[in-house]
Amino acid sequence: MKIEGPGKLLCIFIGEADRWEGRPLAEAIVLMLRREGLAGATVIRGVEGFGADSRIHTAHILRLSEDLPIVIEAVDNEERIRAILPKLDEMVQEGLVCLADVDIVMYRHSGGDTS
Amino acid sequence: MKIEGPGKLLCIFIGEADRWEGRPLAEAIVLMLRREGLAGATVIRGVEGFGADSRIHTAHILRLSEDLPIVIEAVDNEERIRAILPKLDEMVQEGLVCLADVDIVMYRHSGGDTS
Amino acid sequence: MKIEGPGKLLCIFIGEADRWEGRPLAEAIVLMLRREGLAGATVIRGVEGFGADSRIHTAHILRLSEDLPIVIEAVDNEERIRAILPKLDEMVQEGLVCLADVDIVMYRHSGGDTS
Repeated sequence: MKIEGPGKLLCIFIGEADRWEGRPLAEAIVLMLRREGLAGATVIRGVEGFGADSRIHTAHILRLSEDLPIVIEAVDNEERIRAILPKLDEMVQEGLVCLADVDIVMYRHSGGDTS
Repeated sequence: MKIEGPGKLLCIFIGEADRWEGRPLAEAIVLMLRREGLAGATVIRGVEGFGADSRIHTAHILRLSEDLPIVIEAVDNEERIRAILPKLDEMVQEGLVCLADVDIVMYRHSGGDTS
Repeated sequence: MKIEGPGKLLCIFIGEADRWEGRPLAEAIVLMLRREGLAGATVIRGVEGFGADSRIHTAHILRLSEDLPIVIEAVDNEERIRAILPKLDEMVQEGLVCLADVDIVMYRHSGGDTS
């Protein structure tokens, strides 16, 4: 899989309490991205924030009833990123999804398929 | 609030120990961004790093005297992002603030105002 | 050090278990970036994800045998970012490195060198 060169950074802002088909939405999205063959994805848990529902969530105050913000970041070529947008469209009920242009300067993996 | 289309990603790099008017700067910035009507904001706590003061902070070594790096990310249209920059200019004493072009492909919320 | 204006955001996606010369790779990269004079760097630990080796890592399931995803973010002018790429090329055995255009709107530090 050759992906060096121009690509897209996909950022998905959701909440930790969001769910999809009985499992956490973030986990469902990561499994979908892997199934669709993306190069990688990282789920980051914010410690505070607000989003589509405009409440302030914070790890300090709401430790027991957390709905902290989650950001999922993935980088790949534009074709593969655009291909998963319809699936995200189904899965994300509340949140924000954006794309940025990036230049992929290095991609290395130990898997069997060579670039 | 219609924000799909071209937008800006705002990234604010500060320290966990920074304060503004008696409260943590990150919290003060999040409250300001919500007050100004931004679509959302996420505060991410790094586990290690260095910044405007060039020391290395790490969650492993300095667990008791933490000044870990903080990143605040927010996405909205350019007008709303630019409107909050003068307020950030007042609040951030040390740190780095940058903007990147993004394409907002999805924004969904459950609030009363429709897009 | 004057860095306001057009710059680059460097994003390095690696794994928490990656090592370089006997220490964690993320720590080695942060030390290198500081040695090379970059304005700052932040190491963020994901709670879940997959990457160059395509396994799913999660803080929930694999708490004892963690190889969680790590993202390192740094912002500086293009010249300084490009200067460290050959060093990253030596250090990163598995992972993805990308650059995005940013506009640095504020950089403030308390150090002795004035901008």
